[in-house]
Amino acid sequence: MLNKLSKTSDLIDLFPNGASVGWSGFTGVGYPKKVPTALADHVEKNKLQGKLKYSLFVGASSGAETENRWARLDMIERRSPHQVGKEIAKGINEGRIHFFDKHLSMFPVDLMYGYYTKDKPNKKIDVVIVEASAITEDGGIIPGASVGASPELIQMADKIIIEVNTAMPSFEGLHDITMTDLPPRRKPYLIMSPEDRIGTAHIPVDPEKVVAIVESDYPDQTQGNAPEDDTSRAIAAHLIEFLKHEVAQDRLPKSLLPIQSGIGNIANAVVGGLAHGNNFDKLKVWTEVLQDSFLDLFDSGHLDFATATSIRFSPDGFKRFYDGWENYAGKLLLRSQQVSNSPEIIRRLGVIGMNTPVEVDIYAHANSTCVMGSRMLNGLGGSADFLRSAKISVMHTPSTRPSKTDPTGVSCIVPMCTHVDQTEHDLDVVVTEQGLADVRGLSPRERARVIINKTAHPDYKPILLDYFERAEYECLKKGWGHEPHMLWQTFKMHKELNDHGTMKIKNWDP
Amino acid sequence: MLNKLSKTSDLIDLFPNGASVGWSGFTGVGYPKKVPTALADHVEKNKLQGKLKYSLFVGASSGAETENRWARLDMIERRSPHQVGKEIAKGINEGRIHFFDKHLSMFPVDLMYGYYTKDKPNKKIDVVIVEASAITEDGGIIPGASVGASPELIQMADKIIIEVNTAMPSFEGLHDITMTDLPPRRKPYLIMSPEDRIGTAHIPVDPEKVVAIVESDYPDQTQGNAPEDDTSRAIAAHLIEFLKHEVAQDRLPKSLLPIQSGIGNIANAVVGGLAHGNNFDKLKVWTEVLQDSFLDLFDSGHLDFATATSIRFSPDGFKRFYDGWENYAGKLLLRSQQVSNSPEIIRRLGVIGMNTPVEVDIYAHANSTCVMGSRMLNGLGGSADFLRSAKISVMHTPSTRPSKTDPTGVSCIVPMCTHVDQTEHDLDVVVTEQGLADVRGLSPRERARVIINKTAHPDYKPILLDYFERAEYECLKKGWGHEPHMLWQTFKMHKELNDHGTMKIKNWDP
Repeated sequence: MLNKLSKTSDLIDLFPNGASVGWSGFTGVGYPKKVPTALADHVEKNKLQGKLKYSLFVGASSGAETENRWARLDMIERRSPHQVGKEIAKGINEGRIHFFDKHLSMFPVDLMYGYYTKDKPNKKIDVVIVEASAITEDGGIIPGASVGASPELIQMADKIIIEVNTAMPSFEGLHDITMTDLPPRRKPYLIMSPEDRIGTAHIPVDPEKVVAIVESDYPDQTQGNAPEDDTSRAIAAHLIEFLKHEVAQDRLPKSLLPIQSGIGNIANAVVGGLAHGNNFDKLKVWTEVLQDSFLDLFDSGHLDFATATSIRFSPDGFKRFYDGWENYAGKLLLRSQQVSNSPEIIRRLGVIGMNTPVEVDIYAHANSTCVMGSRMLNGLGGSADFLRSAKISVMHTPSTRPSKTDPTGVSCIVPMCTHVDQTEHDLDVVVTEQGLADVRGLSPRERARVIINKTAHPDYKPILLDYFERAEYECLKKGWGHEPHMLWQTFKMHKELNDHGTMKIKNWDP
Repeated sequence: MLNKLSKTSDLIDLFPNGASVGWSGFTGVGYPKKVPTALADHVEKNKLQGKLKYSLFVGASSGAETENRWARLDMIERRSPHQVGKEIAKGINEGRIHFFDKHLSMFPVDLMYGYYTKDKPNKKIDVVIVEASAITEDGGIIPGASVGASPELIQMADKIIIEVNTAMPSFEGLHDITMTDLPPRRKPYLIMSPEDRIGTAHIPVDPEKVVAIVESDYPDQTQGNAPEDDTSRAIAAHLIEFLKHEVAQDRLPKSLLPIQSGIGNIANAVVGGLAHGNNFDKLKVWTEVLQDSFLDLFDSGHLDFATATSIRFSPDGFKRFYDGWENYAGKLLLRSQQVSNSPEIIRRLGVIGMNTPVEVDIYAHANSTCVMGSRMLNGLGGSADFLRSAKISVMHTPSTRPSKTDPTGVSCIVPMCTHVDQTEHDLDVVVTEQGLADVRGLSPRERARVIINKTAHPDYKPILLDYFERAEYECLKKGWGHEPHMLWQTFKMHKELNDHGTMKIKNWDP
């Protein structure tokens, strides 16, 4: 392999215009740094903006200095399945980048099915760049802080470039790697508990495919985590109460069931709430991404084991993790996103899934992706992998967000979502700082009353109740009353926000 | 057990007002007949309409003479997860029946979690009535033509009544029964191919719970199947072409992968298309319900094995099935709906899933349940169990349906679905008699062009294209252009249908 040590400047020719390119990485950790940067430098230096464009596939988001810079230099023709960054979102929403978001568990499978390479003569991803924290003697890759879609990208690669990152320790032993077989030869994932190992410690790689190895010399460029605030603490408090109630009612054991928690300050507050007090013990985590707050949960003594596809710590969090490696490493496994987000395993384990949406409607549909039904934020991520299959599916959100002119100008509880990613058939609980709506076993009209009364902001409660009662009256009269809507006025709050900077409409008249 | 032989008239007291009641059955076969009818007679005779009301849980739909009659007599307070019948739909849409539809794979699990009995003191289903085609020596139940949610209803039952149906043969040997464990003790379903057996031939029953056994003496009251027509044949022809292409491209083996097909004339035409010619061989079926057309597929010699949770044959179909029992029985297994619709197994096997929606939108979201966003038809059924996890997820629909005044008054391709049950992240193919749109790997704006151009009816193509292009222009200008919509006009076609009996609007002006 040493023969393949290369300078990045020698690799530019591997990336002709129109190539399909895969990167390792997930939520901004474990992504390749040197080659993408060298390509961006090449484009910038030679004024090739818009002339070297690629289809870019990464398990989820990559580093801002690579992905976002590629977007700024107009180097991305197509992107899937998830992204984070101002420049790339701008490229998508201004129509320069063809983006499609996909369930993160399903993206690697569809990739293996050949769906994303079906129009290419070689049916392959042309070049896949993978970051390694180490390489085993037989050429296997030890990933860093994420696994993501690397196994499947490597399986589908025509050529592979490995970036060995010497700025971080080897993560050997922290991974449980499985490759993907295709039907009719797929097997069950024999995982019955988060600590179960079913794979290898490294990603096997066909050495024939490896065209270059380069050294990478700086760590993942992560940011600090979003801090808790009064709203997120209030949401967490409602959720902790609910979980205590479920334990008291014998619907959950005192160790709960494996927790999945998203990214952001509400997730941090919830995990913080689990760490404090002695309500729960011997917790386990089955999730997509671990943030710093899980280090606190480990340190609290309440967390027995955690597994994810990525550890996205802050720079301080990584320092803490490396310093405490002996304590943490035995209680942690990183797996591919196909496994971490597997509906099969999530349902079997009875995961408690929690996520933050753009908006939730009064019948418990949720929008996770498109503001005003059109503007893409980051993508679906794993939200529907978890919420669709979890034992308890929770959407947590502030009841309002500020608009430019009104501190409570946007209600996160709306009559009808402008884009639906999770349906009413999937959600069990909606919770805001106002309260918690348990909608299990309720009909749509019952659900609407509970969601409005328990979770809407006081400024919007009368508006939403008025919508629902008018819709109910009109639809029942027509014999359409299962899930009452006034379709022609249903987005009136959104229109008011667009026209006047707040969703506070005066009435529901046409 | 013989001591428990009872007359139905003695059982009325087991059903006090407000009781929760479970029935066996799925898609109108295998449902209890005598006790529900006796209760209905009791209500009718004693004018107790609205005074004896129950929460009714059945795996899917039951017989018209039981469920629909209960609805007509105002005996249903609450119903889940699926229903078929004019009277019950009327009760739901006029607000007398609280109905919630749920993924059919998930309903039995949530039942076992206690979500539907959480407000009852005994946390049980008060009475479960199960039809048996035979009873084993140790008291186990041999179901008839469906398994549905019977295993879980029996597990959650406080009292059980067994109706032994003597009007049909024993189905012994045709079932593969698994009961449900709860997390953290759930195990994988070790099914790697449709013919794999993992369970028992009967449903084990705690004899202490059995309060009565009654004889039932007439068969399932099924109807004939919907016949093929030119539209369904055209849709089937497009699909067969597509599958041949996938085989040619090595994305499917010549035996395809296990087929799931819904109910109705399009499904019949597709299955008919597979039976004719020699395009495919050694087919296997992993589906929810088998209709008569599968008998033809067996007889064609192309079908090696089929498994489902229900065989809903017509009366003629059942005769044919019983006459040919020796030929069919070895190639058929019936399982619980939790297994037949299991996302775990569907994804592992790489099922080809095909369903018919109410409407599909230009970005490939689909509405499977609520007309005009409000009026419930039958419920979600297994559509999202299959389409969410299938290897190839197909929505097939006529491009238009007639309104009262216009033979093409309703376009099944719309700008935005008025209710979303399947999201853009789930569907791979949309097909109408006009053509087939393969949307795998496409961004929303690419998807819209393909869906409009390939699948919309000529009467609606210019209208939809105009919507899309105006939305695209406006949204890109605002930097919101990922999935362009004109939110305030998006339901204008539906409003026109409501006001003037056709979706053919003149323009998209407000």
